[in-house]
Amino acid sequence: MSGWPDTRFAALVGSAHPIVQAPMAGAGGVDLCSGAVAGGALGSLPCAMLGPDEVCAQAEQVRARAAGPINLNFFCHEAPGSADDGAWRTLLAPYYAEFAVEAAPEGRARRPFDEAMCEAVEAARPEAASFHFGLPSEALLARVKAAGAVVIGNATTVDEAVWLAERGADAVVAQGFEAGGHIGRFLGSDPAEAMGLFALLPQVADAVDVPVIAAGGIADGRGIVAALTLGASAVQLGTAYLHGPESEISAVHRAALGGEPTRFTNLMTGGLARGVAGRLMRELGAIRAEAPPFPLAAAALAPVRAAAEARGEFGFGPMWAGQAAPLGRALPAAELTRVLADQALAILRREA
Amino acid sequence: MSGWPDTRFAALVGSAHPIVQAPMAGAGGVDLCSGAVAGGALGSLPCAMLGPDEVCAQAEQVRARAAGPINLNFFCHEAPGSADDGAWRTLLAPYYAEFAVEAAPEGRARRPFDEAMCEAVEAARPEAASFHFGLPSEALLARVKAAGAVVIGNATTVDEAVWLAERGADAVVAQGFEAGGHIGRFLGSDPAEAMGLFALLPQVADAVDVPVIAAGGIADGRGIVAALTLGASAVQLGTAYLHGPESEISAVHRAALGGEPTRFTNLMTGGLARGVAGRLMRELGAIRAEAPPFPLAAAALAPVRAAAEARGEFGFGPMWAGQAAPLGRALPAAELTRVLADQALAILRREA
Repeated sequence: MSGWPDTRFAALVGSAHPIVQAPMAGAGGVDLCSGAVAGGALGSLPCAMLGPDEVCAQAEQVRARAAGPINLNFFCHEAPGSADDGAWRTLLAPYYAEFAVEAAPEGRARRPFDEAMCEAVEAARPEAASFHFGLPSEALLARVKAAGAVVIGNATTVDEAVWLAERGADAVVAQGFEAGGHIGRFLGSDPAEAMGLFALLPQVADAVDVPVIAAGGIADGRGIVAALTLGASAVQLGTAYLHGPESEISAVHRAALGGEPTRFTNLMTGGLARGVAGRLMRELGAIRAEAPPFPLAAAALAPVRAAAEARGEFGFGPMWAGQAAPLGRALPAAELTRVLADQALAILRREA
Repeated sequence: MSGWPDTRFAALVGSAHPIVQAPMAGAGGVDLCSGAVAGGALGSLPCAMLGPDEVCAQAEQVRARAAGPINLNFFCHEAPGSADDGAWRTLLAPYYAEFAVEAAPEGRARRPFDEAMCEAVEAARPEAASFHFGLPSEALLARVKAAGAVVIGNATTVDEAVWLAERGADAVVAQGFEAGGHIGRFLGSDPAEAMGLFALLPQVADAVDVPVIAAGGIADGRGIVAALTLGASAVQLGTAYLHGPESEISAVHRAALGGEPTRFTNLMTGGLARGVAGRLMRELGAIRAEAPPFPLAAAALAPVRAAAEARGEFGFGPMWAGQAAPLGRALPAAELTRVLADQALAILRREA
């Protein structure tokens, strides 16, 4: 870890570099995580759409392919009851007709972290466990910690960072609104008050004593060093890894990373998430009140998406991307991790 | 200027530090500008609400009080014709009744840069002239340059930065969405695509050869050094200067800088601008389709605002603030400028 000005987070999880490969459910799994670990990052496995057995199996596969710390990522949203999604289905009706499908329950729901998942963590013994939308219950959190995992929470405001640190998070992600995918706000702030990383990060770093991981809009060595200067102990990059060969995204999605503007949409899951627009967002608008709460919107959309993708149309599924997507390079995850670290360390040496 | 890694912009305008005190119409004038100049910044005079004679008079006053470069700031919006603001006046009707006022033309309109203002620049001979919402016509721009002013444009997207550089801007502000006041977009991008400084700045720096000035969310030495790392040659701070004694803001506005969330509103002028909410924003919502285009919304609101402020109510005028407002300190502008430079230079030395 020589050369890094702040080794608090890297020492905590045991990674060579203070870089976290962001978990991206549906966009990268064992291959991406293994590559990032091999390159010296904390590699992440997105587990919110997996069953407990799959979590253990994937963790084992990464262990077999790369030596280094891994992070298992879970969602902690309060699962809504059976919300009425009638208006949403009505809005989607023309697509049901076009693709000749019927509304059906989603095959793979995004489930909140629970007892069964906690057992999977206890079995897999990851070096870290990260949580989106808050933290698990006190009892489950204690078990995660007892299993040896460093607990990482995700904050989009100073209040959320303080909340997470007070409840036992060992490190806190400061997620700027530039980040691709789901904005992790969970204390009810207005989306119109979403903060950019440049303003959020130093305020979070001032407010909590635990190491802060900067996320959102970081794509290269410049961004890493800037984040460290603003108070981060580490950085988390997601979109940067999407360009590479291990990401499991469509060719349309991959091409859009080169320069398509991104925006928040609630069409894919009901939760706000940043991505590039496909046909659904263009035709319905990015934000619709008809969409039921996270994660329920995905269920009614799932059959349309499946039928569209079977035809080679990719505008009905998420194409998550952050605002720094155009800065990315199509490198394998291990090489990208090394390049990012080398770039950052070179800037730090040049400044020295 | 010793100690700064990039002196391109400071050398261009002749400032001791690569710091621009942002122009803030209605929130700071001669006092603020003089203080910033005395501290070693490029001081700015907001001129969009002044007449040409006032511009010359204020520039002379600053010249008499501080030795150093000044920047005159103008708007280059296309002045809309007489837009129908009937729906807007109807929305405001309850306030006309409450404050017993009638709709009237605004006394001080925000005027686009024109022939008369160009003559003022030729007379005042500022070291820099900065423009919001694009650039003046080719002929006027040539005259501004011939008068010796470094021309600064304001970009909120990479496309705008390239547009400005191609049309002769000598430096370009990369304005992150964190910035307080009017977002300067002028090429028609969707507001939902507004970019955070962390992602915008390196993409702008890669796209243009002229020096880039980072703006939005910068409040202290950490932010200055981070911006330089991301590719900026200089930084522009506005909100940071609002805390100090030279700013001409209400006590309510000043107190809100300590932690009130900010958001974009179009209620004050018709243009999108970031600030903290007062009574009008709380009661009508921050964004209303009834508001006519910039700058026309201000006219119908002006009598309500004047009557409210006469009663000590400040929720009907702009309370612009950027997202890093809580990081600010209440220091006189000269001292703040020196502290900012010292903080940044200390970080640069520590990294060295």
